[in-house]
Amino acid sequence: MELKQNGGLGIFFEARSVAIMGSFREGWMGGYGVIKNLHDFGFSGAIYPVNPSYSQVLGMTVYPTVNHVTDDIDLAIVITPSQVVPAVIEQCAQKGIKAAIIVSDGFAETSREGARLQQKVVHIARHAGIRLIGPNTIGIADTATGLVTTPYFTGYNRIQKGATAYASQTGIVGAQALPLEDCAYPVSKICDFGNKCDVNEIDFLEYLAADPETKVIAIHLEDIKDGRRFMDVARTVVTHKPVLILKPGRNEASIKAVASHTGSMAGADQIYDSAFKQAGIVRLNTWQEFLDIPRVFASQPSPKGNRVAIITLSGAAGIMAIDAAVESGLDVAHLSSVTDDRLAKISPRLASNPVDAGQVAPFVSDFTAALESIISTVLADDNVHCAMLILWAASSSDAQDTADVFRRLKQQVSKPMTIWIYGPKLSAKEELSRALEALGFPTFSNLETAAKALGIAARYAEVKSHLNGHSLHSPGH
Amino acid sequence: MELKQNGGLGIFFEARSVAIMGSFREGWMGGYGVIKNLHDFGFSGAIYPVNPSYSQVLGMTVYPTVNHVTDDIDLAIVITPSQVVPAVIEQCAQKGIKAAIIVSDGFAETSREGARLQQKVVHIARHAGIRLIGPNTIGIADTATGLVTTPYFTGYNRIQKGATAYASQTGIVGAQALPLEDCAYPVSKICDFGNKCDVNEIDFLEYLAADPETKVIAIHLEDIKDGRRFMDVARTVVTHKPVLILKPGRNEASIKAVASHTGSMAGADQIYDSAFKQAGIVRLNTWQEFLDIPRVFASQPSPKGNRVAIITLSGAAGIMAIDAAVESGLDVAHLSSVTDDRLAKISPRLASNPVDAGQVAPFVSDFTAALESIISTVLADDNVHCAMLILWAASSSDAQDTADVFRRLKQQVSKPMTIWIYGPKLSAKEELSRALEALGFPTFSNLETAAKALGIAARYAEVKSHLNGHSLHSPGH
Repeated sequence: MELKQNGGLGIFFEARSVAIMGSFREGWMGGYGVIKNLHDFGFSGAIYPVNPSYSQVLGMTVYPTVNHVTDDIDLAIVITPSQVVPAVIEQCAQKGIKAAIIVSDGFAETSREGARLQQKVVHIARHAGIRLIGPNTIGIADTATGLVTTPYFTGYNRIQKGATAYASQTGIVGAQALPLEDCAYPVSKICDFGNKCDVNEIDFLEYLAADPETKVIAIHLEDIKDGRRFMDVARTVVTHKPVLILKPGRNEASIKAVASHTGSMAGADQIYDSAFKQAGIVRLNTWQEFLDIPRVFASQPSPKGNRVAIITLSGAAGIMAIDAAVESGLDVAHLSSVTDDRLAKISPRLASNPVDAGQVAPFVSDFTAALESIISTVLADDNVHCAMLILWAASSSDAQDTADVFRRLKQQVSKPMTIWIYGPKLSAKEELSRALEALGFPTFSNLETAAKALGIAARYAEVKSHLNGHSLHSPGH
Repeated sequence: MELKQNGGLGIFFEARSVAIMGSFREGWMGGYGVIKNLHDFGFSGAIYPVNPSYSQVLGMTVYPTVNHVTDDIDLAIVITPSQVVPAVIEQCAQKGIKAAIIVSDGFAETSREGARLQQKVVHIARHAGIRLIGPNTIGIADTATGLVTTPYFTGYNRIQKGATAYASQTGIVGAQALPLEDCAYPVSKICDFGNKCDVNEIDFLEYLAADPETKVIAIHLEDIKDGRRFMDVARTVVTHKPVLILKPGRNEASIKAVASHTGSMAGADQIYDSAFKQAGIVRLNTWQEFLDIPRVFASQPSPKGNRVAIITLSGAAGIMAIDAAVESGLDVAHLSSVTDDRLAKISPRLASNPVDAGQVAPFVSDFTAALESIISTVLADDNVHCAMLILWAASSSDAQDTADVFRRLKQQVSKPMTIWIYGPKLSAKEELSRALEALGFPTFSNLETAAKALGIAARYAEVKSHLNGHSLHSPGH
């Protein structure tokens, strides 16, 4: 099928002038918070604060109404009390604004009265040709432009530009909830659908499908408005880029809770499950998978098959990695005799897959050189399509030494890998993780997730190839 | 059945004088490493370095042979090349030492020749009445006495004393591999069985069952020497304390790898699975579960039923928590009308379970006071047996405010809870985690693990009660 051009959402993401309607009380997580975040994230467009009760905020003039602004405004960010929102949207209509994000809550998610208020807002907007995101949303964030609409203080000022779009219909996907900077998640866009009174998950999916910054789409989804159309759109999107969905509401109790949380009904879980499978959507199971698994798509080449090599500093972790790999649909690669010979030359203690590099650590004078040789030797094997690496770091100097290995490997390696790091010091683990991610190698919080990410990448490569009507050339068969 | 007194392992753990045989080259992770760690961990017993090639190490006299030591020696820690080990054990025999930990590798795990060497060592020891741990082990660590036998530098000097015994047949359970200090894992003992040439997992299980410092036993187990006896012993142990097992080798590829890693054969996975169930053993699935789930037993009272309350700062996380809770065997508690009324008095936005405390945050002047009231109100409900808390922290001051809430709650709360923390700053999350753990509240790396820990605690309470021949008094039925 044909996708709608950008889901019609360019008017939101490409906004160069924004009006903020809300409270500008200093320190308040309302209009003040939004402006503060726009400054901190480096938004370079024009910002117009609007509120008749204020004259100044953060050194900027506050306009009594949006009609007092003489320049054109692309986007309104509304964070007033819900009762005022209809009047605010009326003013947006008069000003000729075509896009509004309603951050305010107190609509369909809270009461019938709220639902009626939401209907009224939709009616005004539709009449004026205004597209709406929300209400009850933190809106969007775009690392390419610095546009951010959350009123919450985030605890940091930067999100790393990257290729993952994280989307959800609640604020848990927002910069105030995720350690985006500390964990260097590579982010293209963040989208909170909110109550989906107009723009919904399908529009976002179409927009993200066309977004050149986005290589992988991760969606946390509590309900779907139009299941049939969602699956149709998704089926087309997955021929271009992977769609990963975390869909809570797997039992009666949680389905009931979804209804009271979002004001909408979720369907039976098995229906989603099989529909996702048919559409080629990857279903994720846990919150940490949702955060971490996109990394493999954001930075790694596509695996040309499902045969994995495991290179490990711990024999025990190597065995756990096999369990996780096989349960994720990977096969443990059988190394060629040439590779075995090369490994034996590095150390007679090295053999077979998993390759227990920890065995040689006490017996070589330069372990980092040995580790580099081991990894490049194993990855050069045609029987190996991808690799899972289990590294150890106990100090900053360990982290730097190991990062140096990967700095050199970066020139030689063209197969996907995922990395799990263990050791006695969290600081060393984090330092090595950040260094590897900066080099373009993805690290994972959990051993099992590092395996699952590769399994999902291999399966997606297969599915994509199948959907696009040709089979993979799998060398080494 | 009757358990063997301490599994006969008191001679290891209660050693007050130890001899170390190995290399004392400065900075070497051999004999030098062991002595350094003994000092750093605060071992107050006598330490005798033994090696004819050295005269001094770390300011201590090195003895040419163990027979040059005039005092009695309780325990030998052997970390010489494997070929020398038989002679070293001969000398131990002459000295009348009754316990030795053979850290050295190069035995049954490497080759047939190594297996013969191991047999030779066992023969000498058995003849002299010496019990052996290992070879190919980092041995034991005991937070009560500061006894530690690993040669690896750990990156830190303290392990927090606590109620969890971590055991494994490989070094991944050691202080050099786990962030024990950074994550404040509450540790009683660490045990690495190694090649189990004499002392095996059954002896350790019997020892830990009787150990007054240990409230929960977590075992990472690649194979079992005598399955029938292990299950018999375990069945008795679980009537006293929970036994949690992470057993890799869940498929053909990993079973094969176990054989080459430990020099022993693992059996088919389904056999273990049903045997564990019959014995009342809890089986864990992931490495992070192995590390984290014991926390609920180490610090929390036993749940009197399986009905959980979820109190959350994020509505979305609350729904994911329901999924995880139900899949872990918990029921979502139905709050009494009295509780509903009390919650409505705190805020009209509060209702039902999950209790979305995040909803009230913007509307109360003192959110920490509100959070305290919410938690104590919900936990006072007779329909609630346990609670899962989902907290948020973005800064050190958030962490301190929330810790203050739990400092006050500590006096009022007598039901088990588990905690998951999210937010934009890792440092804030870690600070709050450490503060809560110091107060005796367990925190978890993953949302789903926090739910699973409660589910396992509730099921264990039920199993234990059943095994001990009486049923739980479950209030509120």
